[in-house]
Amino acid sequence: MTPYHIDFQPVGRRGECKDNDSLLDCARQLGAGISNVCGGKGKCQSCRVKVVKGATTDATQSEEKLFSRDELGQGWRLACQAYPKDDCRIEIPPESMTSPQRTQVEGLEIAVAPDPPVRTFRLKLSTPTLSDARADADRLLASLKEQQGVECSKIDGEVLTSLSPSLRSWNWECRVALRSNEVISISPLRSLSLGLAIDLGSTKIAAYLVSLEDGKTLASKGVMNPQISYGEDIISRMDAAMKSPLEGKKLQKLVVDAINELAHDLCKEIGRVGEEILETVLVGNTAMHHLFLGLPVVQLALSPYVPAASMALDYKARDLGLRFASGTYVHLLPNIAGYVGGDHVAVLLALKAAEIQGLTLALDIGTNTEVSLIDSNRISSVSCASGPAFEGYQIKHGMRAGRGAIEKVRISDGEIQYQTIDAAPPVGICGSGVLDILAEMYSSGIIDKGGRILEGHPRVRDQNGYREFVLIDENEIGGRPAIILTQEDIRHLQLAKAAIRAGIQILLDVNDKSEKEIDNVIIAGAFGSYIDLSSAITIGMLPDLPLNRYRQVGNAAGTGARLALISSAMRAESRNLASQVHYVELGTAPQFNDTFIRACYLGDLNRIDGLRKDASTHV
Amino acid sequence: MTPYHIDFQPVGRRGECKDNDSLLDCARQLGAGISNVCGGKGKCQSCRVKVVKGATTDATQSEEKLFSRDELGQGWRLACQAYPKDDCRIEIPPESMTSPQRTQVEGLEIAVAPDPPVRTFRLKLSTPTLSDARADADRLLASLKEQQGVECSKIDGEVLTSLSPSLRSWNWECRVALRSNEVISISPLRSLSLGLAIDLGSTKIAAYLVSLEDGKTLASKGVMNPQISYGEDIISRMDAAMKSPLEGKKLQKLVVDAINELAHDLCKEIGRVGEEILETVLVGNTAMHHLFLGLPVVQLALSPYVPAASMALDYKARDLGLRFASGTYVHLLPNIAGYVGGDHVAVLLALKAAEIQGLTLALDIGTNTEVSLIDSNRISSVSCASGPAFEGYQIKHGMRAGRGAIEKVRISDGEIQYQTIDAAPPVGICGSGVLDILAEMYSSGIIDKGGRILEGHPRVRDQNGYREFVLIDENEIGGRPAIILTQEDIRHLQLAKAAIRAGIQILLDVNDKSEKEIDNVIIAGAFGSYIDLSSAITIGMLPDLPLNRYRQVGNAAGTGARLALISSAMRAESRNLASQVHYVELGTAPQFNDTFIRACYLGDLNRIDGLRKDASTHV
Repeated sequence: MTPYHIDFQPVGRRGECKDNDSLLDCARQLGAGISNVCGGKGKCQSCRVKVVKGATTDATQSEEKLFSRDELGQGWRLACQAYPKDDCRIEIPPESMTSPQRTQVEGLEIAVAPDPPVRTFRLKLSTPTLSDARADADRLLASLKEQQGVECSKIDGEVLTSLSPSLRSWNWECRVALRSNEVISISPLRSLSLGLAIDLGSTKIAAYLVSLEDGKTLASKGVMNPQISYGEDIISRMDAAMKSPLEGKKLQKLVVDAINELAHDLCKEIGRVGEEILETVLVGNTAMHHLFLGLPVVQLALSPYVPAASMALDYKARDLGLRFASGTYVHLLPNIAGYVGGDHVAVLLALKAAEIQGLTLALDIGTNTEVSLIDSNRISSVSCASGPAFEGYQIKHGMRAGRGAIEKVRISDGEIQYQTIDAAPPVGICGSGVLDILAEMYSSGIIDKGGRILEGHPRVRDQNGYREFVLIDENEIGGRPAIILTQEDIRHLQLAKAAIRAGIQILLDVNDKSEKEIDNVIIAGAFGSYIDLSSAITIGMLPDLPLNRYRQVGNAAGTGARLALISSAMRAESRNLASQVHYVELGTAPQFNDTFIRACYLGDLNRIDGLRKDASTHV
Repeated sequence: MTPYHIDFQPVGRRGECKDNDSLLDCARQLGAGISNVCGGKGKCQSCRVKVVKGATTDATQSEEKLFSRDELGQGWRLACQAYPKDDCRIEIPPESMTSPQRTQVEGLEIAVAPDPPVRTFRLKLSTPTLSDARADADRLLASLKEQQGVECSKIDGEVLTSLSPSLRSWNWECRVALRSNEVISISPLRSLSLGLAIDLGSTKIAAYLVSLEDGKTLASKGVMNPQISYGEDIISRMDAAMKSPLEGKKLQKLVVDAINELAHDLCKEIGRVGEEILETVLVGNTAMHHLFLGLPVVQLALSPYVPAASMALDYKARDLGLRFASGTYVHLLPNIAGYVGGDHVAVLLALKAAEIQGLTLALDIGTNTEVSLIDSNRISSVSCASGPAFEGYQIKHGMRAGRGAIEKVRISDGEIQYQTIDAAPPVGICGSGVLDILAEMYSSGIIDKGGRILEGHPRVRDQNGYREFVLIDENEIGGRPAIILTQEDIRHLQLAKAAIRAGIQILLDVNDKSEKEIDNVIIAGAFGSYIDLSSAITIGMLPDLPLNRYRQVGNAAGTGARLALISSAMRAESRNLASQVHYVELGTAPQFNDTFIRACYLGDLNRIDGLRKDASTHV
């Protein structure tokens, strides 16, 4: 068995693969995510790829049925049906990627020269004598100037407290960490310069341990945000904090403890300790930011939704309860508005660093969806109250994206095909799944443009006077409860998608642009990475643009946080970006209500009053 | 009875006085301290004054005995014997003042324009709306710029935490306190700008509440340093802190609690609260400074006596446990060396501000005596281990300067005259008292130049083989224990005075100056204010210079602290002064041992090898 060399593009995954593996198997092994709903049976067509170089097995029957002769001639195949017979180069189209091009920002090493706000210097001090009995602190600062040419006049209070015994136990050799004009840490020579970037989401906390010397990510990890015990949505957490300062403190401590644990786990992974962390950047939405800092949220929760602070902030890590190097700081990127936080600024920063050209729409889809329209140096942003439907809440059989969640659905010839997370037996539907179902039901004519479930389909039934669509019935999963989508579920989804689409439209209107002028649509965030773009376009949540204008970039907020961590220039740029943003409050936009109502209809917003476009062409 | 107007100079006390009051009574009522040992009997001659204008009663028999006809003609009188018969101007010579010219620095309003590091601004903010939902912090900073033209980018974390509810409860009007680039407090419009200056002594803590607006002292108070429970001297306190970090924390807390109480008492006195204090300056010797900040002292306690830090420091008051305005700082003046602290820098600052001209010797006498020689911009300093004898310790019947302490003594014709604090029955001898006794015993020939108690005086006795001098015997105070000075007491006092005189001499030698060139001798500190200069010169502790070159300036360290509190320029000057100081380590001065041994002899150091000068001419 000769191993073949397979090169998947544009994700840039390449490696060797055995000749009894399909292209799909091969892609899985190399981590090039190709969509796969039917389980490799050649039925769902979601794994379409183009063989641009090298030989594969001949087209199967199902492929011949799916592709035209021309298409087959161009190299189009189903990855699950084709087996390499030679070294190959395979192109994965955006619609076939599970998280298409997510690595474009996350994996892509953006060319930023490390220029961290914390610098370290190695020093060898002279030993005090009766004729040179200068104070230890003064001797340290003098050596810094003499040996490194660095002027510094301030030493953190805790560093000062440990300075005298430390210098003596290290035989007057040490490593000094400076942040602007302050010594924030001294350590033995063998310590590292570690930085920590944190994306504090309402659901998940992602942490990246970064070398401040070369900017490389050394380890990363995500954990659930433990504040979830107070409620899945941020409103219930703000409610708790508003009710009593003690609850606010508890919410703060939950996150602080989680970050401490994350940081210490990450350091342990590379054989270091959390006390070597010299700088931290944290991004989060405005509510998470406030709860983390212990800032009041009552004025944020109520109209006109005023943050306590939007400017970039620096806190001593220890003042927040974080156990890092003694005098180290946590930097928080600026917020834009009450519902557009530093995490969105981080997304804008990552896009800026990636030098994305042209009119760009950037979305971070969640319970609250932040949308920005970037036109060179002009940035407008809105916040859309999209609600938690896309996170599986408010949906009868909705669930988080966990094991057994239906994440992908196709309805073809009335037959339901679905894919679950970890290929486990289905237990519910997660966000990307409900989006697919809605699109497929609409494309298949099971619901109308207004979202009404129509009579006639074998899976449509009336239950206690309410109509519902049976995705999987009891018999199909061995007598376990059926998984259904109700009329009410559909209404929630319509409101959610309408909120996003209306927000986009207002941004376009305010900037006097049409959707066709958009060069790039950047979809950031976990949910956005997993959705099927075609489905999102079909229902009219996203503008009807060629798929190649779309990029699903994964956790761009985390990338932005890392950039601000390792580069002072990028940090300054984040302040610059935040100050440039023209925040559009949808509540004050006169045309918002009309737009929102139109956007509740399924299909392309711009054709709502005309003919419904055949959405199936996107699938 | 016609009230006369009496003007005492140079202390500048003036006021009305009844015609049946002696000049001494009159001086007491006006707070012009005139020395008085014999209780107004015309015997001790310590209340000599000069009537320069106006008429008084005729000279009494005792005055005719004491003064020559010429002197009486010049207006010399004993204040206890003379009664005004008209408006008078009275000159009190330095040797007759209880705390002569102490007001020269303490009372004197040094002309320093208030220019405090904390500035306050009144603001009226616009109310947030949906179309102007800027963050509260950002709105505040923008208003500061718009309304006051002040750029500021930082807000203290605790201020930020209280900002949103405060602004709303104050109807968007507030007073903002800025320190360099940081908002350190917001308060309602009616609050004051208060500052606190603290002289943290090993024995006493003196605090001054100051208006940062006009620089005026609003209230002041002194309390005992509660660390005394750990030992009177700083060595025993450093020992405790070295033994366990917990003890160090306890020592720190004792002082912090005392300062909190002092500050809140002072504020209450003027109807305000401690939370209105916007800036604090603290000065203390290096050990007190370290214990207050929780800095390690082991390297300070052992040779080569290295401070953890000498540079000027700023701490958040709350980080030290002080309950002042939320984001306020404590500024600590720089130290000079392990045994020359920020309190001495404060003395130098006060002298600088008072624009004292010429070659100046400045002393702060205590367990440790700091001495500086100021020759224009050249300052040299030494630290003398004078020990606690002058504070009444190591002396058999020594005591602190409290009620019943013998504070002044004269031996005339073998008769002992003494004065006690509060005129209470004598219970012991305080520092100024032992200094007087030593001088009087030496002048009266009861002890020789070497300090040996000679036989023959009726009050000299041998007790268990040890010789001692009975100051007051049992019968004189109704059978209560006698008050005596032992040979050992005298040895301790000799060592103490030798340490100081040797330090002065080394400073003169190093600078190639002779004592006669000294234009001013400034004696700072509580003990220094109460000593009889003539006595100190008689025993050879201080250089034999005309008394008018001496000034006892009281708590000049407190004055310096207040200057650094109200003036940024003065604060900068304190750093400048500290950096100028050439610290001379006596342990490394080759001529120190010889000088010290010579200085142990009583009398003028420069005549030790020649004839003893008749010290009685000074009395």
